[in-house]
Amino acid sequence: MEKFQYDYPHPALTVDCVTFGFDGGEMKILLVKRGIDPFLEKWALPGGFVNIDEDLESCASRVLEKECGIKEVYQEQLYTFGKVGRDPRERVVSVSYMALVRTDDYALLVGNLELSVQWFPISEVKDLAFDHEEILKVALKRLRGKIRYQPVGFELLNEKFTMPELQTLYETILGKSLDRRNFYKKILATELLIKTNEKKSGGAHKAANYYQFDHNKYQELTESGINLEF
Amino acid sequence: MEKFQYDYPHPALTVDCVTFGFDGGEMKILLVKRGIDPFLEKWALPGGFVNIDEDLESCASRVLEKECGIKEVYQEQLYTFGKVGRDPRERVVSVSYMALVRTDDYALLVGNLELSVQWFPISEVKDLAFDHEEILKVALKRLRGKIRYQPVGFELLNEKFTMPELQTLYETILGKSLDRRNFYKKILATELLIKTNEKKSGGAHKAANYYQFDHNKYQELTESGINLEF
Repeated sequence: MEKFQYDYPHPALTVDCVTFGFDGGEMKILLVKRGIDPFLEKWALPGGFVNIDEDLESCASRVLEKECGIKEVYQEQLYTFGKVGRDPRERVVSVSYMALVRTDDYALLVGNLELSVQWFPISEVKDLAFDHEEILKVALKRLRGKIRYQPVGFELLNEKFTMPELQTLYETILGKSLDRRNFYKKILATELLIKTNEKKSGGAHKAANYYQFDHNKYQELTESGINLEF
Repeated sequence: MEKFQYDYPHPALTVDCVTFGFDGGEMKILLVKRGIDPFLEKWALPGGFVNIDEDLESCASRVLEKECGIKEVYQEQLYTFGKVGRDPRERVVSVSYMALVRTDDYALLVGNLELSVQWFPISEVKDLAFDHEEILKVALKRLRGKIRYQPVGFELLNEKFTMPELQTLYETILGKSLDRRNFYKKILATELLIKTNEKKSGGAHKAANYYQFDHNKYQELTESGINLEF
């Protein structure tokens, strides 16, 4: 087998992908069950070694497609994890990427080296391979920080949605219940929403109004930032 | 010479340090003049290869100390730059770190492999080695974003400071002039400042009041976030 030689030791470089999925009710995380050592049969974030002629973003796209069947997702760089000893094989530094999608926009496909691929409710995640629980923790913190100063929901909700649906999205990201009145007041104050004439029918409760995002305002607040503290 | 062998090609890993320095008037950036190829005699961000048994943060600390004589600075991870071809020697992926200090808190010391080390006004930076202008651009964007939703200035100003001094700090970070009245109004509305009984004497203008930060409020807003749009 050909060997690659260097004058001084080189670390290996991987990419790990944190993909949050919203299914209308709950925030989930995409995990693969490892089919190879180390951590055989453990659940892990999808990840892989960066090819020597491959950009980091391309590697992140390749990993999600090859291991999970998920294509064309915008992934943003999250953080680089490089602690000595985080991988039992050799020194491995991992650049993590993060995405937020609707789970029902994608059909999952298991890769050749994985035993399984699945969306997990975040609250049920435990005992992941490597330092992936730490990576997930950093990603959740980033996501929770982001929704305080950027609008969220445009790609995650239907074009028309009710206030309870929007509140559910915020609650599942923040991992806590929010007071309904306070939430409505703060969200309406941002002027992000346009009330439509339609109402959601059915159910035991009073019919809820459908809203949609004001696209210009959404864009404007994405750039200028908001401050939503719940 | 000993060679290090791997079954597949490995990238090299470096750390580059973006150190912003405030001198009371202007925002500066710390650069070194390279004493080795490639980019011999070009100005660059301080940087170096990560040792195989060294954590990324330790490498960032070592680089600043060895190349610039600067010790014990809190550096926060900024972004990882990994584009194929960004280094003419081999595939090199660089994890960048960012810090914000007072220039007069440090005496600069040139490292063995550098020809010079110097604070440069950001507006005068040009023609840097590698993709360091891009790294600097990303760092400036991050810094400008941060001061919109986090208090800034505690480590950069004297314990007591005037409003014009605080405004100068914001202006040099943002790279633009701010309207005095509007700035005062927004800063005072954050309740970050406590007015002291002292005034700055001398100068052609009316004596300016000294302020200091309300430490509890500063801490609280660092955690909860603010929204200062200028």
